[in-house]
Amino acid sequence: MQEKYEKFLKKIAEINDLGYAQELLMWDQETYLPPKGTQMRARVQGTLSGLIHEDLTSPEFVALVQELKEAQLPGDQGLNVKEIDKSQQRAMKIPRDLVVELSDTQSQAYKAWVEARQKSDFSLFCPWLKKILELKKRVAYLVGFEGSIYNAFFKAYEEDTTVEEIIPVFENLRQSLVPFIEKIVSSNKVMTNGFVKEEYPVDKQEIFNRRVLKDMGFDLDAGRLDIAVHPFCAGFTKYDVRLTTRYENEVWPEPLLSTLHEGGHGLYEQGLPEEGIGTPIGQSMSPGVHESQSRLWENLVGRSKEFWYHYLPIAKEYFGDKLKNIDVEKLYEAINQVRPSLIRVESDEVTYNLHILIRFELEREMMEGKIQVEDLPKLWNERMKKYLGVVPSSDATGVLQDVHWSFGLIAYFPTYTIGNLYSAQFFHQAEKDIPDLKSKISQGDLLVLRKWLLEKIHSRGKRLTPKGLIQEVTGEPLKADYFVQYLKDKFSPIYGI
Amino acid sequence: MQEKYEKFLKKIAEINDLGYAQELLMWDQETYLPPKGTQMRARVQGTLSGLIHEDLTSPEFVALVQELKEAQLPGDQGLNVKEIDKSQQRAMKIPRDLVVELSDTQSQAYKAWVEARQKSDFSLFCPWLKKILELKKRVAYLVGFEGSIYNAFFKAYEEDTTVEEIIPVFENLRQSLVPFIEKIVSSNKVMTNGFVKEEYPVDKQEIFNRRVLKDMGFDLDAGRLDIAVHPFCAGFTKYDVRLTTRYENEVWPEPLLSTLHEGGHGLYEQGLPEEGIGTPIGQSMSPGVHESQSRLWENLVGRSKEFWYHYLPIAKEYFGDKLKNIDVEKLYEAINQVRPSLIRVESDEVTYNLHILIRFELEREMMEGKIQVEDLPKLWNERMKKYLGVVPSSDATGVLQDVHWSFGLIAYFPTYTIGNLYSAQFFHQAEKDIPDLKSKISQGDLLVLRKWLLEKIHSRGKRLTPKGLIQEVTGEPLKADYFVQYLKDKFSPIYGI
Repeated sequence: MQEKYEKFLKKIAEINDLGYAQELLMWDQETYLPPKGTQMRARVQGTLSGLIHEDLTSPEFVALVQELKEAQLPGDQGLNVKEIDKSQQRAMKIPRDLVVELSDTQSQAYKAWVEARQKSDFSLFCPWLKKILELKKRVAYLVGFEGSIYNAFFKAYEEDTTVEEIIPVFENLRQSLVPFIEKIVSSNKVMTNGFVKEEYPVDKQEIFNRRVLKDMGFDLDAGRLDIAVHPFCAGFTKYDVRLTTRYENEVWPEPLLSTLHEGGHGLYEQGLPEEGIGTPIGQSMSPGVHESQSRLWENLVGRSKEFWYHYLPIAKEYFGDKLKNIDVEKLYEAINQVRPSLIRVESDEVTYNLHILIRFELEREMMEGKIQVEDLPKLWNERMKKYLGVVPSSDATGVLQDVHWSFGLIAYFPTYTIGNLYSAQFFHQAEKDIPDLKSKISQGDLLVLRKWLLEKIHSRGKRLTPKGLIQEVTGEPLKADYFVQYLKDKFSPIYGI
Repeated sequence: MQEKYEKFLKKIAEINDLGYAQELLMWDQETYLPPKGTQMRARVQGTLSGLIHEDLTSPEFVALVQELKEAQLPGDQGLNVKEIDKSQQRAMKIPRDLVVELSDTQSQAYKAWVEARQKSDFSLFCPWLKKILELKKRVAYLVGFEGSIYNAFFKAYEEDTTVEEIIPVFENLRQSLVPFIEKIVSSNKVMTNGFVKEEYPVDKQEIFNRRVLKDMGFDLDAGRLDIAVHPFCAGFTKYDVRLTTRYENEVWPEPLLSTLHEGGHGLYEQGLPEEGIGTPIGQSMSPGVHESQSRLWENLVGRSKEFWYHYLPIAKEYFGDKLKNIDVEKLYEAINQVRPSLIRVESDEVTYNLHILIRFELEREMMEGKIQVEDLPKLWNERMKKYLGVVPSSDATGVLQDVHWSFGLIAYFPTYTIGNLYSAQFFHQAEKDIPDLKSKISQGDLLVLRKWLLEKIHSRGKRLTPKGLIQEVTGEPLKADYFVQYLKDKFSPIYGI
């Protein structure tokens, strides 16, 4: 059987390496691809996707995986077989023609979305979204699901978590957030943020950002930091993890906080288990767990007073005069303003998840056939009014603001909120496990936190499910309470409520 | 048959796209890959090479190609089939095991070469070079050859040209160059070049270099200019052509001349025929023809007085004070100094090809079994003395200076000299075809030359062989005379000989 397992490893190495090439093509597309190169790039990506699908579902490989599955190999070997079997079963259920149709529809839908957003006219995107949902429903029935049809995709992201389990958690969150935001708004506190509008030289920001990444434990010999319009993290292997951030039109210290966010993703990738390189157990657990790492560093660390006790004096060395009159209190307030607003990606920690909940509800109701795509702008605006008290004046700043649906990403939005909830629950546990964590952070010791995350989360790879992980690390299932408590503890003093 | 040709196109598109991914992996490796990412990168490259080899030589595809070959399709279709048949036949003759052994040996030989050069000790590299030559000989007997065994590789580069044909051309060149260089040396003219040692800000150089590229007709929306230790050009498709140059330790205007060199390669790639994208006829003709384009722009244009009549005043706008006391005469002399030296890549236009001839002779004699690898340092130094009148004091500055042999590149060196010869022969023809070409260049009109190159060379793709091309464009076969005449016309006045 070991010989067969070796053969299995060889095949998944090939699939992994094609995936690696795809990741590089994607990274390059977002960073350095010249404009006229996009068309051929799309074709090459398509070719590699096709080859991966072929490799994964070749009858010979399927037979091998089944044989290994029956042999019930122990430990990591068994886990690797189980994961590949899962991907294989899913891939085999979707006929090649449907994959191609979905991929073609998505690339046309994306173009339609770009135009629709530009013209702020949902009707241009509506037929494409309908088509995507229709194809997605076909996929759902092919791959199968229990409970809501939404689970066909939701479970693909968060593994063992169902939408039925997550709804009460989100509902709990909503019930706490809505009145809390009302209180903040009616506090009428206006915070000064004039100072942050000044320009900070990009070259100095870059040096400063790299310094903080290094302090976090991010290894720049096994990764990079570049510039991209939409910041992201791409991990080709744990030894080549690429972060991006943006400086244009961004007010300092937002590029740093964005770097901390991507750095959180990056530490996760660099911390994956050595022995799992190129195999499923060497991968990250889920988008939700991944997002917990980025949000933890961006918000729980980067937007804390403790972080700035250490880094504001250092920032003053870099930016001198511009920060002369700034103290930690002032900076802390400036980067922690809460204001119900229209755009998700510009929203603060408190209102952010209500943006997600609206998307979560609407895409679920669309999938379940409870609402019509045509009614989406109206429903969007109604829920914005209900949850956030603001109403977009146009489709562009409303229902058309996010790219996700045009890419066929259904059930991805909730992983952002799940990530936020995880982040607070993990951090709460870290504070229990690491004596004086906050005071250590205020002395610039970020490595103590990194070490904890590495041991408890990163180095586990995909050996656990997200559900198993949160239980193991915190002794409890996922709940909204820690996140809500974190927000209350943080923002009540800021707003004097 | 058209249906079969469509099937053929689909398969070569797949092979092309894997090659595209390989090119990107290579480009990234030379520009942005973090140090710790190299190991996995090598594996991914290996996987893609294996997949390409498998795709190309799959029995089904071989049968298809044979069928199409017999059908004798007309025009481009027939040419595409012919080219793929050629690669396929060659690939099939080399067993997979030998490919792997060669690739493993090369990567170990490369490491040995790095160490040997560092320690300036040929004996550390000697056993690896022997092994490489032995494997290469096995490949040669498998793929077959006529005349010298060297043709097994030489013909793979220059297509229809044999080493027996090129020897008299090179001999002619040598007989002209050696006495000419002696004359230059004994002229004892010492040229002032102090000014070029000043530092020129890299950011300004970059802007200036991009401006010149644009003037040449290089489309920066379909390409890039980055920094790399060893400058190169990578063309993924004609719409994504990436140049690199280097600034560190380089004296201005060397980075510009290096940019012109890579820009020459780049224009060739961008000028390949639209209708041939992703197929053999859409590729460049040979390394020699490619090098002719880079050397033409670097030397015949970039090191000419005419070029600087236009660009020195512009350079003064960029670099101001530093160029205050420089006129075209002075700059022209500074960038056209001839001095027999030890290092090929630092050598001037006149001595450069003697460096190549030494490598050409030695690698041919090694392949033909006429000399022993152990004797290489001694033979190297003897020929340096004989051709250039200088002798390296160490292996590092002698026989170990080039990476090529450690990569298993045999018969690649002569393509550099062939490129130089082509460049002068093409330029001579361009001057006949374009009235007042030099005066147009002195007015900054580079596009007139680009247009000529595009029409005569670039847009032909691989529809001709190099031999057919030079005959068609210049009405004559390749000869050394034009290059020798160009050197004499240029350097006799400079050295007053």
